[in-house]
Amino acid sequence: MGHTARVNDRTPDPAASRQERKQRTRRALLDAALELLEEQGFSSISLRQVTRTAGVVPTAFYRHFADMEELGLALIDESFRTLRAMLREARTGGSMDGRAIHNSVEILVGYVHEHRNHFRFIVRERFGGVASLRQAIGGEIRMFGSDLASDLARVPALDRWRGEDLRLLAGLIVSLMVQTTEEILEAPPSDLAGYEETMSRARRQLRMITLGLGEWRVAGRADATTAGSRG
Amino acid sequence: MGHTARVNDRTPDPAASRQERKQRTRRALLDAALELLEEQGFSSISLRQVTRTAGVVPTAFYRHFADMEELGLALIDESFRTLRAMLREARTGGSMDGRAIHNSVEILVGYVHEHRNHFRFIVRERFGGVASLRQAIGGEIRMFGSDLASDLARVPALDRWRGEDLRLLAGLIVSLMVQTTEEILEAPPSDLAGYEETMSRARRQLRMITLGLGEWRVAGRADATTAGSRG
Repeated sequence: MGHTARVNDRTPDPAASRQERKQRTRRALLDAALELLEEQGFSSISLRQVTRTAGVVPTAFYRHFADMEELGLALIDESFRTLRAMLREARTGGSMDGRAIHNSVEILVGYVHEHRNHFRFIVRERFGGVASLRQAIGGEIRMFGSDLASDLARVPALDRWRGEDLRLLAGLIVSLMVQTTEEILEAPPSDLAGYEETMSRARRQLRMITLGLGEWRVAGRADATTAGSRG
Repeated sequence: MGHTARVNDRTPDPAASRQERKQRTRRALLDAALELLEEQGFSSISLRQVTRTAGVVPTAFYRHFADMEELGLALIDESFRTLRAMLREARTGGSMDGRAIHNSVEILVGYVHEHRNHFRFIVRERFGGVASLRQAIGGEIRMFGSDLASDLARVPALDRWRGEDLRLLAGLIVSLMVQTTEEILEAPPSDLAGYEETMSRARRQLRMITLGLGEWRVAGRADATTAGSRG
């Protein structure tokens, strides 16, 4: 912290300072866009609005992003990158038991709660008017599914599952996580009871899915005909 | 058809004709909005654009809707009303077996496919910029959940489930149906293979959920502790 403050005031290393200033401006542009996105959709925000809110001249924008679309893609990237690593980490050891479920939900909900502006943007633009952003968000969500499917493949109870079934299962879990994200964003940030409630619902719904896994394996062996005969 | 044509040309009943013309104008306004919504978000569409596209004078709008918001709510209402009745109908008899699952998915996917413009609007505005539309769409989706939870309560295998668990289960199924709707809309209308693939995925994912129901009941009786020990 002391070092940073010194650099801010007067620096003995012009190269480091330039680099740092550049990073600060980039951050200011991203934050300005997030602030504007609280009130507007991405497609209605102009480059000039972003630079004005960030307090930089419009031409400065182009030292960081080719256009607004590239800024939007950077926001998507920073929304997902850390979360994805954290969720993979929570599953190391290949266990998908109650504790892994508990941890994954807590990580997701906590992360979304702390990055509300990012994820409000994600949830809105997931089906918003800018095709490249829609595709990028869809791609990131699919990657959560692929990560999860390859971790599920290492769970002993699922060793006989076909890859396609593992992907379906992962898709189901990711879909529940998307819904949980949406619920977290709908409640006001101060609603801690609602936050706990959402987390508890998500955990129990995840358990409803995982409880069926043993049965599914049996159903799969019997060519899936047992499913129809259950009442 | 012959009757309609005659009325259109010259009618012996001025009252009926007035009523019919009024209905036609209302429909033209709703269709014009849907057409504009293919390219734009709801909040960026103006009343004048809608009347121009519908081919009526702007003042005619107010004989049908108080404002654009009311037109948006009418679109939401007509998107969901028939679908909700059809899905309830598919579950009459209280069976939630393989056939009911098969039918429900087919109804949903077929309905969304035939009303793509309506549901593209729904999916976009679900987290879009107009609060009253967001709330109305959220309310409609929650009603699907309530309908389903009360039907699930009549399924013999679930007779010992608590109301809260039935609502969680219904929420899980509705979440999967929302995701299926989104997938249908992402593929081009002519992609019939993709359409069948989405339907097949949704059915198998639904079965993954329902296969766990028997286990969940056991887990519920044992105070849900068995869940953590699996895996």
